[in-house]
Amino acid sequence: MLSVLLVFQFLHRLCGALVYFPSQYVEQVELEKYDGVEAGKYTLGLGQKQMGFCSAHEDINSLCLTVVQRLVERSRLSWDSIGRLEVGTETIIDKSKAVKTVLMQLFQDSGNTDVEGIDTTNACYGGTASLFNSVDWVESSSWDGRYAMVVCGDIAVYATGNARPTGGAGAVAMLVGPEAPLVLERGVRGTHMEHVYDFYKPDLASEYPMVDGKLSIQCYFRALDQCYSVYRKKIQSQWQKVGVDKPFTLEDFQFMIFHTPFCKLVQKSVGRMMLNDFLAAPNPDTQSGLYKGLQAFRGVKLEDTYSDKDVEKAFQKASLEMFSQKTKPSLLLSSRNGNMYTPSMYGCLASLLAQYSAQQLAGSRIGAFSYGSGLAASLFSMRVSQDAAPGSPLDKLVSSLSDLQTRLDARKRVPPEEFAEIMKQREESHHLVNHTPQGSKDDLFPGTWYLERVDDKHRRQYARRQLYQIKV
Amino acid sequence: MLSVLLVFQFLHRLCGALVYFPSQYVEQVELEKYDGVEAGKYTLGLGQKQMGFCSAHEDINSLCLTVVQRLVERSRLSWDSIGRLEVGTETIIDKSKAVKTVLMQLFQDSGNTDVEGIDTTNACYGGTASLFNSVDWVESSSWDGRYAMVVCGDIAVYATGNARPTGGAGAVAMLVGPEAPLVLERGVRGTHMEHVYDFYKPDLASEYPMVDGKLSIQCYFRALDQCYSVYRKKIQSQWQKVGVDKPFTLEDFQFMIFHTPFCKLVQKSVGRMMLNDFLAAPNPDTQSGLYKGLQAFRGVKLEDTYSDKDVEKAFQKASLEMFSQKTKPSLLLSSRNGNMYTPSMYGCLASLLAQYSAQQLAGSRIGAFSYGSGLAASLFSMRVSQDAAPGSPLDKLVSSLSDLQTRLDARKRVPPEEFAEIMKQREESHHLVNHTPQGSKDDLFPGTWYLERVDDKHRRQYARRQLYQIKV
Repeated sequence: MLSVLLVFQFLHRLCGALVYFPSQYVEQVELEKYDGVEAGKYTLGLGQKQMGFCSAHEDINSLCLTVVQRLVERSRLSWDSIGRLEVGTETIIDKSKAVKTVLMQLFQDSGNTDVEGIDTTNACYGGTASLFNSVDWVESSSWDGRYAMVVCGDIAVYATGNARPTGGAGAVAMLVGPEAPLVLERGVRGTHMEHVYDFYKPDLASEYPMVDGKLSIQCYFRALDQCYSVYRKKIQSQWQKVGVDKPFTLEDFQFMIFHTPFCKLVQKSVGRMMLNDFLAAPNPDTQSGLYKGLQAFRGVKLEDTYSDKDVEKAFQKASLEMFSQKTKPSLLLSSRNGNMYTPSMYGCLASLLAQYSAQQLAGSRIGAFSYGSGLAASLFSMRVSQDAAPGSPLDKLVSSLSDLQTRLDARKRVPPEEFAEIMKQREESHHLVNHTPQGSKDDLFPGTWYLERVDDKHRRQYARRQLYQIKV
Repeated sequence: MLSVLLVFQFLHRLCGALVYFPSQYVEQVELEKYDGVEAGKYTLGLGQKQMGFCSAHEDINSLCLTVVQRLVERSRLSWDSIGRLEVGTETIIDKSKAVKTVLMQLFQDSGNTDVEGIDTTNACYGGTASLFNSVDWVESSSWDGRYAMVVCGDIAVYATGNARPTGGAGAVAMLVGPEAPLVLERGVRGTHMEHVYDFYKPDLASEYPMVDGKLSIQCYFRALDQCYSVYRKKIQSQWQKVGVDKPFTLEDFQFMIFHTPFCKLVQKSVGRMMLNDFLAAPNPDTQSGLYKGLQAFRGVKLEDTYSDKDVEKAFQKASLEMFSQKTKPSLLLSSRNGNMYTPSMYGCLASLLAQYSAQQLAGSRIGAFSYGSGLAASLFSMRVSQDAAPGSPLDKLVSSLSDLQTRLDARKRVPPEEFAEIMKQREESHHLVNHTPQGSKDDLFPGTWYLERVDDKHRRQYARRQLYQIKV
């Protein structure tokens, strides 16, 4: 398996939770040399260590087939028990036929075809839209007692140049149902949507996007400001109803995860949230504590500071400990696999769960900022269940993700020359008909689906690498 | 305005409901001559009278901008009062940036950016997926008391050949909220999804789909059988819980609307549903009544009859009166504008509401079959409110749609040569950058948005034809 596939669940009744790691990645430090850029540009400037990528015989359908089947197998679910399945993706290989319909192949033997949900798209936001839709479904009269599965996946590739080191690939599948070890907090989602051309894919014949990097970072910060502001307003209003009258701040999130285009942006975002807290505080103490020495920034306006290096630096420094405590552990997968687009933030969640014990996580509030260019963004929060006893659903979830780092270490490093060659293969072949894509199935992890053939009518046939080797 | 735009609402608190009609269409009888096919092929064979179409300065964004703004204006809504807006479409002009984000321009002055929902896609099913998501949202804890707007739109165009006369274009916007004049019945949605290549758009650089017409009709019938079977099972189970023990049949729908690729298929579908009833009935009376003379078909299996002309003919004949009563009025727009894809079935709903009085509609159950190739399909039902008094929400809704026929009559007929020329213009220009598309804004109805310019970075700029002429 050449790309990261994550599977975990929001449901207490399942013990399974699994993560696939890429067997194939490129080192960012080697990519810096190969690209002839200054040392540290990708590693320090972007905060990226490695980048996973797919060969030509993987596409969005194969990624999602793998992650859905593995989740069902590992959780020992029956295919009948799923009443809804929705896919969030921006890797569009057909303008009409949804990835969801391709996944229905997996349900065929069960005879279960009564499975609501199709595909949903806006840049990296599709996974979050699917999650919200699924959670709403479970709470509505439409819910028939079965699980909702949320799938998100993408192959993030860029033309040669500045943006190429910010690629990645992967897929995540999640199960949603009642009484879960992770629960979305109700009535506090803060959403911000606006019309902007920061990152988009208008050249339908190309796998590559158009990117205005500087604008996109501004948009990301503006959306973060706006979503955080709405979130705080909503949660403070809930608090007031039960007699609690205090401002909500970053301190109230035990953990904070972000959509991660590159890790450095996330570190800056923690600083940005502190800036929001600071400006919203009626009388912040600038003599001691968190805000010490920040008096000079008391008068700034959020909208003037998107590219203000002084503000950025000061709040990044002031929030350094918060970043280390609340966010840094969530960047494990992002730093070593890159930007998976729709699954990015859910990969951060998996990284977080992988690096703490159930006891450490129990009862905590995890803040989550999801961003999709164009743009659609939401800040929401999850509560981790209190029950962290051995054998509890939370304990099982956490245990099943604990080998993340070991598996990342076990991947195959590919030199930049070979990576560039594989990117070129994708470029030249992704649209071909009557074609068998390049790529060895032996490079794939057991149980991985791959694209076997595209026939003369563009119909795609998939095969699966055997899950277990039969020993004689 | 060159395409059909429909706006109506599911909400009792709004009085507005409006329909835009194409000022531009081609006569199917003239198209038969122009294409050199036998007389009646499109008109009798497909059951189509006319076909609306868009010039090159309309795209999916402009259609949706128009329909959303007109709904808000006519309903005298404030932009603040919308908490969710989702778009169902298969007219993809950007693989990442959702139409939804383009629509956020309309909200700009209000400052309301906290509007959930993005785009959702699977062929013609996107409108139904959006509607289901919106209804679930209103019923969930995520609902913040504001309206959900469901938008669906498409431009359906085909390469020259057999499928071209089955095109069309349009957009529909609907408002969803509590206490509406039309209410989705709970817990009875019957869904069928499977993996099939009947109609798909794998050539991303083209506006045209790949179509296997024969397979697609089989798939449509199979999905109808399956959805109707699940729907009946669910509603009969509800009935049994309240002591009613009888089979659900077509008779229990006062009206039945369908996704309408072409009208003849819908007429056959009513026969198909009767075949389902007939085969499910324990002891159907074949001596008299509905099923008279159908004894010979008692032993057929549904799956063997997708292209069985004898079965089709017999049940089409037997269901003729039912078709005339329950379905034919809903085909007004489809027969005269063609297939709008995602809005197709919602155009049927508008046609139905346009041709009956509130008194005639009050209390009735409307069955609805939504189909999207690939495939995703659902059969669900709506109940019309009992209150049909003058001035009631139902009365207002119905009145606002009553001029549908008159407006269709007022459109401009375009000869097939000119239609073919405009299709060619679209083909040659839909992907161009640094480009001002052809098309006169004077041909558009007042209040219509159009594509003004695509710049060198593929960014699209829109303008609106003035809503009202200022009289001096």
